[in-house]
Amino acid sequence: MPEPIAAASVTESASGRKHRAILAAAEEMFLRGGYLGTNMDELAALSRVSKQTVYKHFGSKEALFVELVTTMTDAAGDRVHNEVADPAEASEVPAYLRAYAERQLDVVMTPSLLQLRRLVIGEVGRFPDLARALYESGPKRAMSSLAAAFGRLDEQGLLSIDDADVAASQFNWLVMAAPLTDAMLLGDAALPDARARRRHVADAVRTFLAAYGPRD
Amino acid sequence: MPEPIAAASVTESASGRKHRAILAAAEEMFLRGGYLGTNMDELAALSRVSKQTVYKHFGSKEALFVELVTTMTDAAGDRVHNEVADPAEASEVPAYLRAYAERQLDVVMTPSLLQLRRLVIGEVGRFPDLARALYESGPKRAMSSLAAAFGRLDEQGLLSIDDADVAASQFNWLVMAAPLTDAMLLGDAALPDARARRRHVADAVRTFLAAYGPRD
Repeated sequence: MPEPIAAASVTESASGRKHRAILAAAEEMFLRGGYLGTNMDELAALSRVSKQTVYKHFGSKEALFVELVTTMTDAAGDRVHNEVADPAEASEVPAYLRAYAERQLDVVMTPSLLQLRRLVIGEVGRFPDLARALYESGPKRAMSSLAAAFGRLDEQGLLSIDDADVAASQFNWLVMAAPLTDAMLLGDAALPDARARRRHVADAVRTFLAAYGPRD
Repeated sequence: MPEPIAAASVTESASGRKHRAILAAAEEMFLRGGYLGTNMDELAALSRVSKQTVYKHFGSKEALFVELVTTMTDAAGDRVHNEVADPAEASEVPAYLRAYAERQLDVVMTPSLLQLRRLVIGEVGRFPDLARALYESGPKRAMSSLAAAFGRLDEQGLLSIDDADVAASQFNWLVMAAPLTDAMLLGDAALPDARARRRHVADAVRTFLAAYGPRD
């Protein structure tokens, strides 16, 4: 007799709830106490599951942190890269680029993602997989997506780009590097306000278009 | 009777030697073990001085680390910003910018400075003064110096710059952001080789000059 579908889905849902509860506790504890400062007994207690359940779901403390990094960074990436139509004509390109950049800044410059980034950078020697997970789901994904968009815009004559990967890297860092470095080194107090972000993005897009705007 | 000059200078020199020995031990131990992982008794032993002498020279563990950050970053900055004559005509500007950028990459992308940077980023929540010291002697000094140079080049008609601070920040990050982020997140194995650096710098300078080259 086949297993009742409802029972299977209840089981899966209970397991899924535990999975999410553990990840939520991991986010709270790792971001506050750091990787080494997080105790797995306390993490299980905060998740309201047994330590055995934590290890059944995630295998190890390091694997749990890798999944936390991937989950948080992927969720942020989804918010940046949600479906946006390409611009239809050259006059729409500056606004399209500014909107992308402002969305990316809004998403990346949140205290929890910034703290995650500081944490994995501080631990890159001991736990290189953590930082690599953040790199792949974060800047690498952003730049791949940008390179693909720039390739399409070049084909349509809306941008003029020889090497889409170089252009994507330059655009990404013209936008992200200054605010991200300030936040990494000066803390959340250095986060630019909405007006400063808009001005910063406008400057970045202007410089990018001077190099990659459509040929007349 | 005045104190003998020779004796004073011997005293000062012995004290200076101790000062340097403590800083050298601090560099070795902090970069290897992290801030919290560094033990002041072991640091005194490695410096071949008493722990009392360490505290007499530096006051506290945190003050010692701030001085280490400042000393290392200042020394690096001195190597980037050593006297280089401004270019005399427009045709020399691209080579001048490339030489500056390559020098900056060579100096900043060294394993000890990168590890120092990872360390202070990881500890910015607990010890904000460490990261602030690196920021002031590092990116902030670099961008102030660049902004001053760009202001002079604009006056001479060799660049065309409205806001020298914006241009300096954009130049700095077009050059530094990608290799620095790769190194922060992927470790020293991601350091670009000499050929990749030259290509990266040439791309950065080309984009910068498209935006800020002299008006025809």
